[in-house]
Amino acid sequence: MKIFKTLLLFLLASTTMTAQTKKSFTLDDLMWGGRNYRNIQPRALYTSWWGDRLIRLGAEEVALISDEKGHRQEAEVLFTSSDVAPLVDDGTQGHGLNLYYATFPYAEQTVALLQTSKSRFLYNWKERCIEWSQTLEAGSSNNEFCTASRSEAYTKDWNLFLRTADDHVHQISTDGSREIPYGTSVHRDEFGIHKGTFFSPSGNLLAFYRMDQSMVTDYPLVDIDHRVAEAAPEKYPMAGMTSHKVTVGIFNPANDKTTWLQAGDPTDRYFTNISWSPDEKTIYMIELPRSQKKAELVAYDVATGRRLGVLYTEEHEKYVHPTHSLTFLPWDETKFIYQSERDGYNHLYLFDTTKGELRQLTEGNFVVLDLVGFNIRSKSVIIKSTESSPIRNNFYSVDIESGKRTLLDNGVGVHDATLSAGGKFLFDRWSSPQTFREFTLRSVEKPKVAPSILQADTDPWKGYAVPEISSGILKAADGITDLYYRMVKPVDFDPAKKYPAVVYVYGGPGLRNVEEAWNYRARPWEIYMAQKGYLLFILDNRGSCDRGFAFESCTYGHLGVEEMKDQLVGVNYLKSLPFVDAERLGVHGWSFGGFMTTSLMTTYPDVFKVGVAGGPVIDWKYYEVMYGERYMSTPQDNPEGYEETSLLNKAKNLKGRLQIIFGYNDPTCVPQHTLSFMRACIDADTQPDLFTYPSQGHNMSGHDMVHLHERITRYFEDYLK
Amino acid sequence: MKIFKTLLLFLLASTTMTAQTKKSFTLDDLMWGGRNYRNIQPRALYTSWWGDRLIRLGAEEVALISDEKGHRQEAEVLFTSSDVAPLVDDGTQGHGLNLYYATFPYAEQTVALLQTSKSRFLYNWKERCIEWSQTLEAGSSNNEFCTASRSEAYTKDWNLFLRTADDHVHQISTDGSREIPYGTSVHRDEFGIHKGTFFSPSGNLLAFYRMDQSMVTDYPLVDIDHRVAEAAPEKYPMAGMTSHKVTVGIFNPANDKTTWLQAGDPTDRYFTNISWSPDEKTIYMIELPRSQKKAELVAYDVATGRRLGVLYTEEHEKYVHPTHSLTFLPWDETKFIYQSERDGYNHLYLFDTTKGELRQLTEGNFVVLDLVGFNIRSKSVIIKSTESSPIRNNFYSVDIESGKRTLLDNGVGVHDATLSAGGKFLFDRWSSPQTFREFTLRSVEKPKVAPSILQADTDPWKGYAVPEISSGILKAADGITDLYYRMVKPVDFDPAKKYPAVVYVYGGPGLRNVEEAWNYRARPWEIYMAQKGYLLFILDNRGSCDRGFAFESCTYGHLGVEEMKDQLVGVNYLKSLPFVDAERLGVHGWSFGGFMTTSLMTTYPDVFKVGVAGGPVIDWKYYEVMYGERYMSTPQDNPEGYEETSLLNKAKNLKGRLQIIFGYNDPTCVPQHTLSFMRACIDADTQPDLFTYPSQGHNMSGHDMVHLHERITRYFEDYLK
Repeated sequence: MKIFKTLLLFLLASTTMTAQTKKSFTLDDLMWGGRNYRNIQPRALYTSWWGDRLIRLGAEEVALISDEKGHRQEAEVLFTSSDVAPLVDDGTQGHGLNLYYATFPYAEQTVALLQTSKSRFLYNWKERCIEWSQTLEAGSSNNEFCTASRSEAYTKDWNLFLRTADDHVHQISTDGSREIPYGTSVHRDEFGIHKGTFFSPSGNLLAFYRMDQSMVTDYPLVDIDHRVAEAAPEKYPMAGMTSHKVTVGIFNPANDKTTWLQAGDPTDRYFTNISWSPDEKTIYMIELPRSQKKAELVAYDVATGRRLGVLYTEEHEKYVHPTHSLTFLPWDETKFIYQSERDGYNHLYLFDTTKGELRQLTEGNFVVLDLVGFNIRSKSVIIKSTESSPIRNNFYSVDIESGKRTLLDNGVGVHDATLSAGGKFLFDRWSSPQTFREFTLRSVEKPKVAPSILQADTDPWKGYAVPEISSGILKAADGITDLYYRMVKPVDFDPAKKYPAVVYVYGGPGLRNVEEAWNYRARPWEIYMAQKGYLLFILDNRGSCDRGFAFESCTYGHLGVEEMKDQLVGVNYLKSLPFVDAERLGVHGWSFGGFMTTSLMTTYPDVFKVGVAGGPVIDWKYYEVMYGERYMSTPQDNPEGYEETSLLNKAKNLKGRLQIIFGYNDPTCVPQHTLSFMRACIDADTQPDLFTYPSQGHNMSGHDMVHLHERITRYFEDYLK
Repeated sequence: MKIFKTLLLFLLASTTMTAQTKKSFTLDDLMWGGRNYRNIQPRALYTSWWGDRLIRLGAEEVALISDEKGHRQEAEVLFTSSDVAPLVDDGTQGHGLNLYYATFPYAEQTVALLQTSKSRFLYNWKERCIEWSQTLEAGSSNNEFCTASRSEAYTKDWNLFLRTADDHVHQISTDGSREIPYGTSVHRDEFGIHKGTFFSPSGNLLAFYRMDQSMVTDYPLVDIDHRVAEAAPEKYPMAGMTSHKVTVGIFNPANDKTTWLQAGDPTDRYFTNISWSPDEKTIYMIELPRSQKKAELVAYDVATGRRLGVLYTEEHEKYVHPTHSLTFLPWDETKFIYQSERDGYNHLYLFDTTKGELRQLTEGNFVVLDLVGFNIRSKSVIIKSTESSPIRNNFYSVDIESGKRTLLDNGVGVHDATLSAGGKFLFDRWSSPQTFREFTLRSVEKPKVAPSILQADTDPWKGYAVPEISSGILKAADGITDLYYRMVKPVDFDPAKKYPAVVYVYGGPGLRNVEEAWNYRARPWEIYMAQKGYLLFILDNRGSCDRGFAFESCTYGHLGVEEMKDQLVGVNYLKSLPFVDAERLGVHGWSFGGFMTTSLMTTYPDVFKVGVAGGPVIDWKYYEVMYGERYMSTPQDNPEGYEETSLLNKAKNLKGRLQIIFGYNDPTCVPQHTLSFMRACIDADTQPDLFTYPSQGHNMSGHDMVHLHERITRYFEDYLK
């Protein structure tokens, strides 16, 4: 039984103006990287907090736009780049000074943290002087600055260094190499890891990762941008194969000593979500074995590196997926918030550092997406969640004592906000299908008070022929679960006609495509295709994110299978529509969506006539261990699952036109995926098409995005029109 | 002024049978590597000489078919594999014994040289015994066996070994490595070099190459046929960059000593065409500097390696291109034949080892293609040449004294022949447009005597719908030179219709496509395309081979430019034909032809609508030094030429549909060519198409040839039909 409910259907195009009289977009207008992209975007609003005051940033000017009471005010220019540049004495004459990057780390001081290419410095706009400065190391990377200690951690030639506020440089490691990098992100950025240095609260100590990857196979990428192409090998541990070994050290610049956490043999283990206790005496990690079926919160003694014990253990027969470090309550150093999906949705739990878990703070069939900070006065934590709808994001304060949640925004649409340093205000950037974008200042303590609208953008596409975009719900292939879709109708839609339809798909963990934002998050290419007479359809199948653990993990062990069943629900719905030509269905997706596209083309060869797959996974055995084994286990332990989902086995089924496109230097879905599929198709006498973007990685950047989408469009125009 | 003369036009299809009632070919029928290829080929005839007697080889049987007087006789079976197998005691039980590879090295003995995977042996079919055997080294390569000494030279793990007749192994080198291989071909198989070992006439000494390529850049090829793709670097000296250094040694197994030729610093020099004097006291090399504008014939003392002097020097402002070693007269150890293009065509010159050049032996506006041996009784040398027509190959004997040439075959068509060991007979395999293939035995001494026809194949394509194939002449863009073309008309040709036409092109040095052989050498794909309704056109432009030095070298310094002008002559001719649709012209070529195709698509973007380029050169700076610099000099010395011919500069001109296809493991036209072109097109916002065959090199092998040509055909069907 198919249940369909139109959530919202709204017409963007004015009824008094036909599309013929309106302008059409080019890809150079629509795409990030397009030559005309900036000209049809509304003006931006960049801000930074100074305590609870909001500051507007510009390239050459910094202005206060809201005071410490949250009162909006006429912009008061605090300083300009020409005030600062003459004072810079690092040899750059202030060249490269860009005030967009200014921060205001000390609420009680009239100083801004600024930098040129050669130095970082604190500018006091009241005294009109540079109070402090620090040299920036040329050729350094992984730079992390600590405002508390004014120390900077950075890596150079794979080794880790610490530059203290007095400009003294401490070399922390000496045996760093491509085989053993220090101070970088580890475990291929999984488990919420995105960096390799962790300052203690005071900034006087530095925890860091050391990763021995000498035992990991190199994937032989090739860089053609040299006189003779050069090998550019990438350490890439593939599913089931030997992985790297990570250890964690704590460096103390006071005595130039490193203490190593005594975590035991690091073979096939993940050390994640490093967190400092406020008193800097204890450091925590969440530790997982390679199977990822267990997560342990382990405490270590900072002074000795000694393992103190396990505070909390979580297990699941599929996987446990911790991605958040601990967040200590600002008013109680003995308590912290832990995030867990253990009840089926990501929620907050209050822990005591000695007693362990105290209680669950949030509960319900929704997902806590983010913990952005605290309001100390009300003893509440500020979160973003999907409580009001799976396709909305809203902000709430949660009273730590009572667990009571208070909505902080208007309760509709998709919100993204930063919390002021004092926790009193939210700078909220939000949109909804009807609202292109609004920047508002909201009070955390008085959420009922009408917010200050700082900037509201009217429809930037006025005068253009824009398609009708709607959203709705279908029941998943399990007959129970609600799935959300977006439909983009062709420009000048005529319900009496039959249109070719293209399904855009991602479908993998960690991402969703349909949100109650402007145009339901329609991608620029969808608008372009709608202009060309295609109907676009996007459905977030089971396995995609922010719908809870069961929704995401029902795909465990055979990625793609359940996802495709849900996509077929969408296809059957499309086929039921009188204005969709069931003989002209296409599919397009990138990355996991490229895997889905290729899977759909070869699993349901009579459904889709044309597909374009980008950077696809072809066989999960070629994917890396951290993400891959979480969802697929190892090829050794799950041979049936790998066999069932390998597209090498399905190459023979290809009937329609399928173009696969990949970045020639893709270090994520390495070229072996696509090339092996080509080989399998050649051996099976099927004829896929192919393209590659040399010097590009997993996703295209710059103007190549325009070229790519022109290419994708042309393929549908050639074979689906 | 366009001059056109139909040389020959003949109808293959019977006039009483229309194509509709006839069968059509699939690519699996037509292509080498196709699944049905062998079923529609005529039976083969494999032979070997035993002195002046001709022996027919089979997998399991060896039979005498012509005696020492050239009398054809009923096949007399000499022995079968079941005679031999029981006698083999190398552990294989004669398994792997394939009599197709039998040779008969000793005219006066009833022995055949045979081998299994484990041993080489001499089988005496009269005595029914194995007279001698030798172990074959497992894992060896570059194997060369000397029938005189029964020694075998081979390489293993980059080092060179000699196994003497007594099965004793001498290790000649010990420092061999990928950086310094021994006993392999050098200079990338240019200058006629195809191996790295050279036995002296008696087989008691072995000259060999040592190549130090440690200073040469690696091209980073990648092999995907592993659990994780592996780097498969190829030493590839690119035009203008550092090249390898070659030296020549002579190994004497009698004292286990190697003597090195004292040729001086090998930097930027080519040592080619190694030749032994019959008395084994002198060894000769033709030496060229890197510029290739000079060739010196240099003699060395075998005993000491001392350089004895230069016998002959040839220079040219473009290049000198020696590809033939010296051939000593069998009846006079002091005289040898040298081949040179110095008068404009490759001809024979008689030299004396002490007096130097004596006289020119052949002369005229034709090319000596091959020197196949001698007839001692008549003191004549047997050659193959283009004397009767630039598109014919015929055999002649040349009287050494008088220079008088005597035609040895029927004077038409294209002949390929082996000369009997005694020099009395030719085993001639020939064809002409009317004659599919004929195997004949011809007398060298009595050429007027009617030859014995050993096997004549009637049209193997009887019953198939076959296109009309013709040849003709056009004047080149220079207004003077005759160019030969082939035209394949669509099956069921109707002169009142307008057909799409596809130009197939190679166009580079060393190859010609139009010959007076069966179907004028039409390639299988041309037949396939003709079946699908295309007219195919193939023109050998200036720059292609066997037309003399001026014809070939007029392209010097800017490859592609003159060649394209000539191809445009062909295009204009096509456009003048009422049955060719000038709006539907396509072009296809591989290697140099891929370069031509891409050049034509981007230089004349309004002429060709569709192109398919295979394994193309895109910029000669990415090609290797030996071939590339011969025709283009270095990028440093000829920047304008490299700039003019670089397709990276023309990527922006692409208008039509162009698919480039390359072998992913191509070590000849490395992938950087195609990938750089893709990058240039992306940057210029043009849209080429692409395909690659993983695990294939410069040319496709096996069934991939069928897949490839299905792919090429589909592209024309998609966009040119």
